[in-house]
Formats: sequence, structure tokens, C-alpha cells
Amino acid sequence: MSTLSDIGEFGLIRHIRELIEEEGVEGIGTIAGAGDDTAAFEPRPGHAILVTCDAMVEGRHYLRTFMNQVEVGRRAMAMNISDIGAMGGQPRWALVSLGLPEDMDIKDVTELYRGFLMELNPLDAVILGGNITKSDYGLLIDITLIGEVERGNMVRRSGAKPGDAILVTGYPGQAAAGLEILSSKLYSDSPEVRPLLDSYRTPPHRAMIGWAAARTGAVTAMIDISDGFLGDLAHIGEESGVGAEVIEKDLPVSEALLWIAEKWRKNPRKIVLEASDDYELILTCNPSDVETVRAAVAKVSDVLITEVGKITDAAGQFEVIQPDKSRTAVIGGGWDHFYRP
Amino acid sequence: MSTLSDIGEFGLIRHIRELIEEEGVEGIGTIAGAGDDTAAFEPRPGHAILVTCDAMVEGRHYLRTFMNQVEVGRRAMAMNISDIGAMGGQPRWALVSLGLPEDMDIKDVTELYRGFLMELNPLDAVILGGNITKSDYGLLIDITLIGEVERGNMVRRSGAKPGDAILVTGYPGQAAAGLEILSSKLYSDSPEVRPLLDSYRTPPHRAMIGWAAARTGAVTAMIDISDGFLGDLAHIGEESGVGAEVIEKDLPVSEALLWIAEKWRKNPRKIVLEASDDYELILTCNPSDVETVRAAVAKVSDVLITEVGKITDAAGQFEVIQPDKSRTAVIGGGWDHFYRP
Repeated sequence: MSTLSDIGEFGLIRHIRELIEEEGVEGIGTIAGAGDDTAAFEPRPGHAILVTCDAMVEGRHYLRTFMNQVEVGRRAMAMNISDIGAMGGQPRWALVSLGLPEDMDIKDVTELYRGFLMELNPLDAVILGGNITKSDYGLLIDITLIGEVERGNMVRRSGAKPGDAILVTGYPGQAAAGLEILSSKLYSDSPEVRPLLDSYRTPPHRAMIGWAAARTGAVTAMIDISDGFLGDLAHIGEESGVGAEVIEKDLPVSEALLWIAEKWRKNPRKIVLEASDDYELILTCNPSDVETVRAAVAKVSDVLITEVGKITDAAGQFEVIQPDKSRTAVIGGGWDHFYRP
Repeated sequence: MSTLSDIGEFGLIRHIRELIEEEGVEGIGTIAGAGDDTAAFEPRPGHAILVTCDAMVEGRHYLRTFMNQVEVGRRAMAMNISDIGAMGGQPRWALVSLGLPEDMDIKDVTELYRGFLMELNPLDAVILGGNITKSDYGLLIDITLIGEVERGNMVRRSGAKPGDAILVTGYPGQAAAGLEILSSKLYSDSPEVRPLLDSYRTPPHRAMIGWAAARTGAVTAMIDISDGFLGDLAHIGEESGVGAEVIEKDLPVSEALLWIAEKWRKNPRKIVLEASDDYELILTCNPSDVETVRAAVAKVSDVLITEVGKITDAAGQFEVIQPDKSRTAVIGGGWDHFYRP
């Protein structure tokens, strides 16, 4: 098998270029691709440009033993696609910056790119270029993804208003439960947990939902869940100067999560509230617009949309209302890679 | 002194946001900045968008002992600005993705960002956002820089024509000589080598020159030197399907490089041809356009422009013509991080 040391940096770049040409889509508005250090594209009139970057580091953000390279590529790209979708935009052009171990098999690099393309192709989005450097410490993937958003349709975190309904897509917490199962090796072969493992390995992005919802003009704030439901709700709260009440019994819990939570003797809704690692969306809108948003989303996706609470004017206060009507004040925790209390 | 562990990821992000607001310029066309995961901007009509990314890894691309953090930041940003300039564009919006050691001093992060801003501010370019992750192995800086280029003025590597003159800016090879002096610790205190050390620590980009030259419409191909003069001339050759002759005696050699080459008993022109680490530009144009290009550049810069050879129709052949008129065939070598012959 050939490795990077065998074919060299320029050989690898040629290989990647060919792969993208053969297996990628053509894309929209692309002018200059991987042949120059700098890529070029022409945005469509009437659109603003969105840009996001997110990194995935082997050993820190994922373990090689839990995922194959196609899955690693899909996850890294999906998390960026999710960020563009959460602003109401459409992903268009990606730059991939890699740090590669010298002994990495070319076949694995190919699989990684197949994972990127598997997420990009259905969206007519392309890899425009990137950068390769050697890494002494496992694989580093840093993706910059650029998208377009129709003028006037961009949704930020800062527009939530007191009284707005809080909606969430899908079943947050599934991916984190899947990771926990893979880490503990308990129940990992039970068919009941299969959806959880899938959610961890290839978490779906909700970009089409974000885009369709944004086009209604009714969504006041939107964010994708990467710091946990409460963590990201707190980001909306901080940027919008509001608080929130979440009704615990209304939180969406999948059968698979219910099953494993019972084995673990945990409250599954605590997992939904706190866990990270999947990329569902939180949306807010006036209660009178909930059906409009649902109807627009239903045209592009059959993913569940659940109303789970409401925005309040108590800035910075986040409360979970228990089934017995008691209230628990929560701190918008979520992921903080450096903080040690 | 406080470190990342003390203030946490979100604390650090707040600190960086404030720093950018206070010490950065306002920028052009910016809509949404660091408050969202995804930044947004509106390109000016009549412009295409350019995008580049380049990474700098402590211990691999630079040693901490040779540069302070301001210089590290300046170098990392300058190499990206250079890539946009080499396409004839103007840098506008940067995304900074960092991998930071947990015990890194906040003061050092601040200095790093001051270095970024020192390069961006004079260009009216801004940091729009980014991403922070923890690194166990020193500082990783991955910058994505987005620029605009007036429609019709983009210059690629692929347009060089047989007979075109080859021009180069400044004094290539100075930075590599500076690095060699720092590594060997010989002569590093001699005042004669100061320009070489400066070139290594804060290599200037030539974006304004690239932009001014591109606007003449006369430049057929352009590239910045990051793989060595011959390595990057070979990139032009490959993309344009041409070869080149370089006249050794015409290569620009600074007094400082001449001084150290004598101490080293090396041919200084060999350093100019092969060394990397500074970001001068190679430009090609019809010989009848050389004066037009020079005149346009002179309006924005007093940097030396030297004509050093010509493009030939012998695709893939690169020759250096010695003072005695003998010809040496050279292989477009340059940097290849993985190749081991």
C-alpha cells in the first residue's frame, strides 16, 4: 500500500484533484479551483456570503477506532454544513486543510475525501481547494465552508423575542449516547442502539430545514446544537438578551435513547438537554408562526419538529419545568474545552 | 498570569472579540461577525471572490524561540495575504482557526491577534470569526482569508506565454538565509544580517503590488514564492504548459545576502533560486508590457522589480544560464513535505 511518503505532497495533491474531478459535482459559480493556491468563485446576485470553519482533531474530537475514514470525513463536513444551514444559507464552496500523519495510507485519504463529497454532492457544493501539512500527532481536519444566503433571509442568534416558541429538530442527544456506548463497549451489539451509533458516526445536518425555515421570514433566531441543547439555547439567550423556559416532558426522546437510558438508569431528557455531538437545530418564532414554519419544513424533510418551550424576558435565566410543575434553574453549560471550575 | 484553563474557551472568545472590536478596522461589507458560528459579508458588485487557506504549525513551520507571538501572527497572516495578492485580489475577511496549548498565556494569545491585525488593518481587512480548539502539541494556526478581485482582473498561474518576460519582486532568499542564521547561531548578532532576520520574522507580502500589476491587464501569470523561486516558477510552467530560462547574473541579491553568502562560501544566487520562506511575487508579461507593469507598481510601492529571464515553449524545461553562457537544467524542486527520494 502506498503512503504519503511514497507519493509526496504534490503527488497527493494531484491524486486529490483527480478524485474531486471524477467524483464531485460541478458546483455553482466556481471559477478557479485546486490548480491555484487561491480558489475563486462568483456569488449569485442578491445573495450575501456566509463563511464558517470548524476543526476535527483525531484523539481529541473523535477516536479512530470508533469510525472509518468515510465517516470521519462525513462528520467533519456535516458539522460545517450545519453551521451554514443554521444561518438559513446554502453551502457552496469548501476548503479543506489537512494535517496528515506521514504513514497514512493513500486509500484512507481517498476514503476521507469520499466522506466529504458524500455530504457535499447532494447540495451541489464543491471542494475548491485547501492545504496539506504533515502532522506528527494524528489526523487534523480543518474545513472552511462558504455558503450563500438570499438577501433578507439570513437568521442570526440575536433575534429571539420574549414569548417566542422554541422548536427543535430530530432527537438531540442520540449521538452522545452512541459515543457513550462505543466508549463503554456495553450494549454496543444490541440492535436497539443502532440508531444511536449511526447518529454518532454520521450525524445528519439539517441545512435544508434551516434554509426552508429561514425562507418563511418567520424564524427569529436559529442555532445548531454543537454545545448541547441548553448550551446553545444559552447562546441564543446571550445574543438576544432573553431567557427561556423548557418543558421537560415535551422534549423529544427516541425509542433507542429511551431504551439505553433505562439500562443506564438515567433520565433520558437530561441527556437530551445536556449532550452534544449531533447537529439538530433550535429555532424560535412567534407562536402564531409555528404552523407556517412546520409547513415549510415539511416540504423538504420528514424530520420531526417539536415545540419544547418558550423564550422569556428574564435575560440570562434558563429554567426547565418538570412534570410536577416545579422549576429547575439551569446554567447554560455545554462544551467548554478549557474551563475547569 | 492567566491561561486558557483560567478563563475558559468562552472567556477567551469574548476577550478576542473585544480585542478585534477595539484594535481592528471596520472592514468593508461585513454583516455578521464573531457573534455567530458563521460569519457573513456582502461582496461588492462586479467582483469575484477569492479564498485561500494556509496553516502554520509550531515546531514544524517555525520555532517558538526564533519569533515572538506578534511576529508569529504577522507571518501567518502575511502568507495568506500574499496568496490573495498573487491572484490580483484585495484581502477582505479572515477566519482564524487556532489549536492552543492549555497552558498558553492569554497575553500571548493577545499578541498573536495583534500580529494578525497589524497585517490586516492597513488593508481595511477584518477578522470575521474562527474556531478554537485545544492542542496538546504546540500552537496551530490555520487561517482562511477571503478577498475580492475586480471582474476580469484575476491573474492565474496558467496564462504564461512563450517569450514572456519573467519578473520578480524584492530579494527572494533573504528569509531562508535569516532562518539559517538563527538556526546556526553564527553571525546572528552581526548588524549586516539584520535585514535577513527581519525578512524571516516578518516577511512582507506583496499584495498591493499584485493588485496594481493585475489592474494593468498585462500580467499573464503570477504566483507568490512559497516553494522557492524555481519551485514556484515550475508551478507556472506546469499550469501554463511552458518552460523557462533564468539568467543567473540578473537575479536580485541584497547586500545582506551577499555578505552572509561570502561567509558561508556559497553562491548567493543559488540561495535566491532555491530558498523558501519569503513571499515575493513572480510575474510574467509580454516583454513590451514590462514598463507598463513597472510604472503601475511604482505608484503603490518602491520595492525593486527585476527582470530575470523569459518563458520558453519547452514545456517542463527550466534552465539557468550561467555567467559563462553555459546552461544548467534544473528540476523545479522546492518544498515537498512528504517526498523522500
